[in-house]
Amino acid sequence: MIKVAVLGYGTVGSGVVEVLEKNRQQVAGKAGQELQVAYILDLRDFPEDPYADKVIHDFQVILQDAEVDIVCEVMGGVGPAYQFTKQALEAGKSVCTSNKELVARHGAELLEIAMAHGCSYLFEASVGGGIPLIRPICNALTAEKLLSVTGILNGTTNYILTRMDREGADYGQVLNKAQELGYAERNPEADVEGHDACRKIAILSSLLTGKNVDPKGIYTEGITGITSADFAYARAAGCSIKLLAASHIQEDGSVCAWVAPFLVEMAHPLAAVNDVFNGVLVNGNMVGEVMFYGPGAGKLPTASAVVADVIDCARNGNRTISCGWSEEPARMSSFQKISHVFFVRASEKAREEVLAAFPVQKCVDVAERTEDFGFLTQPMEEGVFAQQYEKLGDKVLGRIRCLGVQ
Amino acid sequence: MIKVAVLGYGTVGSGVVEVLEKNRQQVAGKAGQELQVAYILDLRDFPEDPYADKVIHDFQVILQDAEVDIVCEVMGGVGPAYQFTKQALEAGKSVCTSNKELVARHGAELLEIAMAHGCSYLFEASVGGGIPLIRPICNALTAEKLLSVTGILNGTTNYILTRMDREGADYGQVLNKAQELGYAERNPEADVEGHDACRKIAILSSLLTGKNVDPKGIYTEGITGITSADFAYARAAGCSIKLLAASHIQEDGSVCAWVAPFLVEMAHPLAAVNDVFNGVLVNGNMVGEVMFYGPGAGKLPTASAVVADVIDCARNGNRTISCGWSEEPARMSSFQKISHVFFVRASEKAREEVLAAFPVQKCVDVAERTEDFGFLTQPMEEGVFAQQYEKLGDKVLGRIRCLGVQ
Repeated sequence: MIKVAVLGYGTVGSGVVEVLEKNRQQVAGKAGQELQVAYILDLRDFPEDPYADKVIHDFQVILQDAEVDIVCEVMGGVGPAYQFTKQALEAGKSVCTSNKELVARHGAELLEIAMAHGCSYLFEASVGGGIPLIRPICNALTAEKLLSVTGILNGTTNYILTRMDREGADYGQVLNKAQELGYAERNPEADVEGHDACRKIAILSSLLTGKNVDPKGIYTEGITGITSADFAYARAAGCSIKLLAASHIQEDGSVCAWVAPFLVEMAHPLAAVNDVFNGVLVNGNMVGEVMFYGPGAGKLPTASAVVADVIDCARNGNRTISCGWSEEPARMSSFQKISHVFFVRASEKAREEVLAAFPVQKCVDVAERTEDFGFLTQPMEEGVFAQQYEKLGDKVLGRIRCLGVQ
Repeated sequence: MIKVAVLGYGTVGSGVVEVLEKNRQQVAGKAGQELQVAYILDLRDFPEDPYADKVIHDFQVILQDAEVDIVCEVMGGVGPAYQFTKQALEAGKSVCTSNKELVARHGAELLEIAMAHGCSYLFEASVGGGIPLIRPICNALTAEKLLSVTGILNGTTNYILTRMDREGADYGQVLNKAQELGYAERNPEADVEGHDACRKIAILSSLLTGKNVDPKGIYTEGITGITSADFAYARAAGCSIKLLAASHIQEDGSVCAWVAPFLVEMAHPLAAVNDVFNGVLVNGNMVGEVMFYGPGAGKLPTASAVVADVIDCARNGNRTISCGWSEEPARMSSFQKISHVFFVRASEKAREEVLAAFPVQKCVDVAERTEDFGFLTQPMEEGVFAQQYEKLGDKVLGRIRCLGVQ
């Protein structure tokens, strides 16, 4: 029997306890032995809870119990989670987490500590919730030279964009509704400004390169500027609008990653990823593109991924499970040199001047719109596009990058 | 350094050699050591080939070379492949294969032999080509009680159905074109009659249950009866037509599997799986549905999956990698008791009699069709439906099951 401690008895933490309880038999079969929740660390008490007697408030109890082999860190945030994780690993206890913020910021360091102390730091749940993603990238697509990852990694923004698309509603309205339904937090900044997706693509970029990709080096743009007008044009161009996170290995071995809304052609597999679902395309030099799709968040899916990591630790005994992500900083290439097709929306009055400023691929017409017009550019380097775009001032009303639009 | 032998220098075999060559560095990094092709077994000679000096014709050479630790069986078929695999495993050499026919027929026995001789029998490439599928099911979704698998597992039939849908063409025409393009074999029976998908769903069913599911016990229907008229009605019902393979664990723990064409609602993730691509939905009691999508066949994707297995063997040294598929026969439940919504196409002349014979959900109208009409039933047990359907003789012209249609 292996004793497990759960740090944080919120949504994911209670999910972890539920998965371990409800799927006790499957879990024991896969782990090769019973897994038992020995402690639940939380600031609060839960007197009515069936696990009330497992709830403690002092992390030292867990640290000093030599029988606890595995710790699930599902508190979130960097503060105490970082300290607790470090101490647990230094004590030789493996840590399984859903904490993308901590993994993105200190993953490389924590992996080194785990390695040094003969235990593991696993984080399948930190990207894509319940979708097996990190394990397939690290353990299944092993014969591949991985070239890129492109995904919808944030369920909240995907829900908002899906509603805007289907209902023709404006961003503000849909955000309010999403907050009411609990799909968006009261302070939605981390989601809608792209920070959450940025952390996740930083993690995937680190796994792709084997080196450390700092989230701060990733160009990040959220969805707060997307309007119902943009969706009208997107539909006319045969596209939807999705917040994509992407990471591309360049020919010189450097990596470039970004988070931004994109027009995605309807025939593209990512265009069919709707509502709170996530989808991730992985591109390898032999297999081509494979996609992983499923619930990118939610109590039980996320908890299931944490427990899968716990099972892996149990199966592997005291051997460190390594994903080859070192502390060496990855060489980043300039986002300014990346080429995209751009959709541009501009004031009808300035049509001629605006069209003259870009290599135009085709115009996108929406009959009912008379004040503005839209068009797609030829592929342009980010830096070159930005220069032209800025010059035009308020004659241009918006621009969105395009995926799958030729 | 680990020495690898490749059995069969056809499409997949030459792909395996190519992946090992082109991604030498990645593969060595993941495997922890160099992998070297020591022998290529084939009946033919390949005098112009850069690996000409590795080509041999006698399997005994491989068997007797104690330095060969891993054998890639990519010959296909059951005959010699079965004997060679058995002998290799008995000699303690791990075998990695893309041979779905052999895995479906003798997988359980070969896994037992591998276990008894401290080596592994791996078959990631046998289902879904290059898509990581078997490994995620066995090693990632470990915290789940898996409830069902539903997938598009045959690229040839998916290509044919996609073309029929897009071009309004008839089955025969599209099959001819697919044969010209090399997407369908000259004798297409294994694909178009559903046998290939049946073998694959038998393998997945065995992994789901941990027991042996005999392909012979799986209801199998191909696509040869699908007409352009069916597609006209499918479109009117907001659906596409896909050849699905499914396996469901029943509440009593028994399993029921089938292969048949289905009307699939356009909003369903499997409806977006087109051309030669495969897609597989896995349903777990905690995560809900996750989907794996990608190239289900093809030289390099399939070879990449075989090499991923080779890397796993190399990493694991002499420990057997087990997927928990025993020789004990799985308890099968009757397909006759499974409920589906059915689309029925019948002669306009017999409209009243036919409609009276079924619990009708709604009619599906196609303006330009005057000789026949179509409707959807309420969910009906297979056995009950079949009885009614047969009674009506040639008054009914066709029927297709439905997925996602309420």
